[in-house]
Amino acid sequence: MRFVGVDWGTTRLRAFLVDGAEVVARGASDDGIGRLQPGGHGAAFGRLAGAWLAAEPGLPVVLAGMVGSREGWFPAGYAACPAGAREIAAGALAVDLGAGRQGLVLPGVAYEERGGIDVMRGEETLLLGSDIADGLVCLPGTHSKWAEMRGGRIHRFATFMTGEMHALLREHSMIGRPATEPADPAGFEQGLAAVGAGRDGAASLLHDLFRARAATVSGQLAPAALGPYLSGLLTGDEVAGALRLFRPPQGVSVVAEPARAALYAHALARHGVRAEIMDPEPALLGGLRRVLAAR
Amino acid sequence: MRFVGVDWGTTRLRAFLVDGAEVVARGASDDGIGRLQPGGHGAAFGRLAGAWLAAEPGLPVVLAGMVGSREGWFPAGYAACPAGAREIAAGALAVDLGAGRQGLVLPGVAYEERGGIDVMRGEETLLLGSDIADGLVCLPGTHSKWAEMRGGRIHRFATFMTGEMHALLREHSMIGRPATEPADPAGFEQGLAAVGAGRDGAASLLHDLFRARAATVSGQLAPAALGPYLSGLLTGDEVAGALRLFRPPQGVSVVAEPARAALYAHALARHGVRAEIMDPEPALLGGLRRVLAAR
Repeated sequence: MRFVGVDWGTTRLRAFLVDGAEVVARGASDDGIGRLQPGGHGAAFGRLAGAWLAAEPGLPVVLAGMVGSREGWFPAGYAACPAGAREIAAGALAVDLGAGRQGLVLPGVAYEERGGIDVMRGEETLLLGSDIADGLVCLPGTHSKWAEMRGGRIHRFATFMTGEMHALLREHSMIGRPATEPADPAGFEQGLAAVGAGRDGAASLLHDLFRARAATVSGQLAPAALGPYLSGLLTGDEVAGALRLFRPPQGVSVVAEPARAALYAHALARHGVRAEIMDPEPALLGGLRRVLAAR
Repeated sequence: MRFVGVDWGTTRLRAFLVDGAEVVARGASDDGIGRLQPGGHGAAFGRLAGAWLAAEPGLPVVLAGMVGSREGWFPAGYAACPAGAREIAAGALAVDLGAGRQGLVLPGVAYEERGGIDVMRGEETLLLGSDIADGLVCLPGTHSKWAEMRGGRIHRFATFMTGEMHALLREHSMIGRPATEPADPAGFEQGLAAVGAGRDGAASLLHDLFRARAATVSGQLAPAALGPYLSGLLTGDEVAGALRLFRPPQGVSVVAEPARAALYAHALARHGVRAEIMDPEPALLGGLRRVLAAR
């Protein structure tokens, strides 16, 4: 199958000209949804993909991510769990991208339970493309996603605001203020070890975070180690929380760039859980292909 | 006993002329430790207390709070738990405040255990002045303190960065961005109820916080309720974490202004724990008096 796949997030726009399993051409820009004004989407898209579509007018175009949010180009709602390629394709919007181009904007996915609702937008594509029919998949990030796949569909999932929290603590908090660069990566391991290390082993993140400050002001933690320490604390808290929620069998598939994936594999190993690391780009394109094929 | 008591925090400087249980005079300014340059402390103190000391040169002066931190006027270290009035008085610095005035700068208190260190600076005074010889005391705030008192001494304690986290989320995060004012206070109760409301009841704050965003973007939570909702979520998470750590008998003494204390009493009541509410100012002055008397 030959198609144009678009990953349109809050800060980045990426477009791929795909043929089978091969990326024929690619483009990227900073025209994220959060940086565009209403009316600017068509031009931003055209700058990356216009030439491809002019050369092949009938090429299918599929767009995933914040492009389908209320702040995006074509608000596309949410498909409900359990959601596979067919359910997501059924919730997609066929839209006119301008100059006669047609496109398919994918919905997000929502998981609703007694305790409330959770949502994703963009990650569903990577989950479908991970080729994990049954198992637990972790997508680390600003808002990390953990999804239980059953029969090739997203059965349920949970989001953790780990990456955003690390940025908040490093850039705006009293806790992170003493951190210095260049950072000492050994702090990550110390942070992992500090999760719920108190008297009864029950983690309380608000307490563990303050203790990072106490360790710094009392001289027990070097300022250069503080940034990685906070990362370790948050990653460890996320992993512990996810494993409580999902009680995985033996392994977790981690879809992330190698450096970040290695940190998660390390955090999982502390719980005796094996990580299988997968590259995000093939997962993204594989997921887009699956949804197009399910139309 | 007649004395000058000073509560010198990061953002505020407060001075009291005390006679027995009575406040004879008081003053306050924005000359907090975080806002003063080196060399500016003496003048800031003199503006509030200079006239009192000129009238009564022999008056004892006792200073608590960030004034004794490394960024303060007279770095005073930490007394180790268990710490009562005698241990804190023993760790206090007798200092020359200028113009022949003498003062006593109190140390903070540190609690060290296998899992790491925790520190307080200023709150130890309120704890001593709470007059709770044996029991659990909660001091809500930017960095909330929970302390187990035994025999009138601070036996152990834990800090939760609840207030700072709420400010971070409201002012800097994607989670808090949709919040609108005037706020709907009913959100607090919804946030309390959402703590660990997922499948297995095990709270994960990073997950619960993201669900606040999911509830907002999906229209299940009104933007006006979001600020109080986040406050309820954080307060509930703090209280649940503290009760895991301290397993209190039947009640907790909450030292806070009435509005904030009522929110904590409400959060505690969900766990079947009774709150006894105490006013912070008498606790502060009572604690300063106890330390002076222990010299």
